[in-house]
Amino acid sequence: MYEYSHGGNAVFEQGNENIIDLSASINPLGMPENVASAIIRDIPNINRYPDNFSILLREKTAAFEGVNPEWIFLGNGASDIIFRLPRAVGATKVMVCAPTFADYERSARSYGAEVCRYTMSKDNDFSLDASFVKAVQVEEPNLVYICNPNNPTGKLTETELIGELLDVCKRIGAWVVIDECFIDFAEQASIYTSKAFLNDYSNLVILKAFTKVFAMPGIRLGYALCSDKDLIDSLYFHGADWAASNLAQAAGLAALDDANAYIKRTAEYVAAQRCLIERELARLGYMVFASSANYILFQNPFPFDLRDKLNSAGIRIRSCGNFPGLDDTYYRIAVSTKENNSKLLAVMKEVSVGRQS
Amino acid sequence: MYEYSHGGNAVFEQGNENIIDLSASINPLGMPENVASAIIRDIPNINRYPDNFSILLREKTAAFEGVNPEWIFLGNGASDIIFRLPRAVGATKVMVCAPTFADYERSARSYGAEVCRYTMSKDNDFSLDASFVKAVQVEEPNLVYICNPNNPTGKLTETELIGELLDVCKRIGAWVVIDECFIDFAEQASIYTSKAFLNDYSNLVILKAFTKVFAMPGIRLGYALCSDKDLIDSLYFHGADWAASNLAQAAGLAALDDANAYIKRTAEYVAAQRCLIERELARLGYMVFASSANYILFQNPFPFDLRDKLNSAGIRIRSCGNFPGLDDTYYRIAVSTKENNSKLLAVMKEVSVGRQS
Repeated sequence: MYEYSHGGNAVFEQGNENIIDLSASINPLGMPENVASAIIRDIPNINRYPDNFSILLREKTAAFEGVNPEWIFLGNGASDIIFRLPRAVGATKVMVCAPTFADYERSARSYGAEVCRYTMSKDNDFSLDASFVKAVQVEEPNLVYICNPNNPTGKLTETELIGELLDVCKRIGAWVVIDECFIDFAEQASIYTSKAFLNDYSNLVILKAFTKVFAMPGIRLGYALCSDKDLIDSLYFHGADWAASNLAQAAGLAALDDANAYIKRTAEYVAAQRCLIERELARLGYMVFASSANYILFQNPFPFDLRDKLNSAGIRIRSCGNFPGLDDTYYRIAVSTKENNSKLLAVMKEVSVGRQS
Repeated sequence: MYEYSHGGNAVFEQGNENIIDLSASINPLGMPENVASAIIRDIPNINRYPDNFSILLREKTAAFEGVNPEWIFLGNGASDIIFRLPRAVGATKVMVCAPTFADYERSARSYGAEVCRYTMSKDNDFSLDASFVKAVQVEEPNLVYICNPNNPTGKLTETELIGELLDVCKRIGAWVVIDECFIDFAEQASIYTSKAFLNDYSNLVILKAFTKVFAMPGIRLGYALCSDKDLIDSLYFHGADWAASNLAQAAGLAALDDANAYIKRTAEYVAAQRCLIERELARLGYMVFASSANYILFQNPFPFDLRDKLNSAGIRIRSCGNFPGLDDTYYRIAVSTKENNSKLLAVMKEVSVGRQS
């Protein structure tokens, strides 16, 4: 059978109550308070089909993002949109970075498009620079993905570089998809978001999700922003109707009630905890890649399988062995609650101390 | 913008509280009682990803359907599966009946497959017969859809004919998809289901959904049955992960608690109400096509737009003008609650009496 390839599966283990699952990266503050009651209030409406075009949620999301409601497609998680995109744009050659989220490539292959990988270098701190734009010019894909901040590296891409990429892609007739599902965890989100480009570049699609920042991966709700209304129509056409369920739409509406304050609190909390974990991991001898997201990539220089050691202590982390461009000496851990992070660091200290060179 | 093309949109109208929506066909008994509390109990788990492979629900669904759990794929409604199928089987030529559910054709076109329509004849009561199997032999598609009972005609297809179709399709290397989303509304479901063919025909896929029979279209949960495990794997690969949300899985588990008794009650209720509506519509002069589902197709012989007349009375019905093979003299109405059906018939009488020839 097809295997679990992402993180976040500890919940399906027996006796999972005491497991600390740091393999999926969810807002440690949890769901906004009013979401649960909004879902409960909406249960009587389950006997009706969802609004296929999510009119109410689209308007509220538009106000939150500062864009036109007609520029929004709402789907069954960002993954649903990633699988519609190759068909919606008629992708023939798709360019992805490595390491990055696996589904850009999987959806391209599912559609039968050629996939071209640009491998980011550890020596360059896994950051994108001008050589990526040059590679795009050479390869001439018609669909390019950037994950910003990138999963699993946590690295942000400079807005200037994205501007150059958009120009090149406009010239060669390529679509640019910027996955900003984790950007609201970055304190500098407003500087790094590509939203300002939407007006001038109709070849730009931005992906976002309620999943991560509002801690509701179980409800499945993501969206795409694009100023080309034909692309939005095409996303509706190239996939199932009623993709966002009634309860997902209700949860989304509730989450947006106080979104800006919630995101601000989240980014501050995550930044403080992330800094603490990064510093401690580095002190213990791990090679840490400074992150702007709610997860941290690091490399284990010691000759033991860290995941096994943490598993025994009831902590799940994401081995990065199945990310092209990484290997199983790399791990990704979520920035979790203060309590969970303390437990992680205590266990990490236990397994690592005395191992430093 | 892309338009609402299915029924069930009255909920988005202003002042919808008093509207009787017969344009979508949902179990008039409503959701099983325990579903709402199961959803509420599961809300705290929204902060975790769903089990991508829905292990618990798959096992319970397998027990309910009497099949191997590994023969099941669970998705975001049957529509989600319909959009995965052409890619999962590598469809190049898809054969659909007309009139039928629009998404078989739309998903084929989205994938770039050729579509070939077999038009069922009003003179043959919109039933499938041996000429369909002959048409398949001539056209040599590699993916064939039958909706059983068919939407919007309510007609069942004989098991014998499906057996012949499966043999022919096995020979020409074609997949057969039997959409049984409405079959549990038929009192003779156990006679007409193609489940018994699953063992011997690995080219058979059966589609079912919690949507209709458990009255939960707002939650999005459907499934495919197939004895070819590679096809099940392929359905997982060719679409987004986590397609069935946590709450959908929880609702599905609850709905199956007492499924057989609930379905029996439903089929009896629907049969009695359907019979009553069919008889009265015929008496009023409408051309009624006897149905085995929870909806009825009929043709209006009078020179007025019936949908307009019913709209004014606060009743929504489905005009069949956008079904290839029908035109806007055809309508589909749901078999609803006794109360709603009475109101419908009263209004139908009012607008029709004196019009009979």
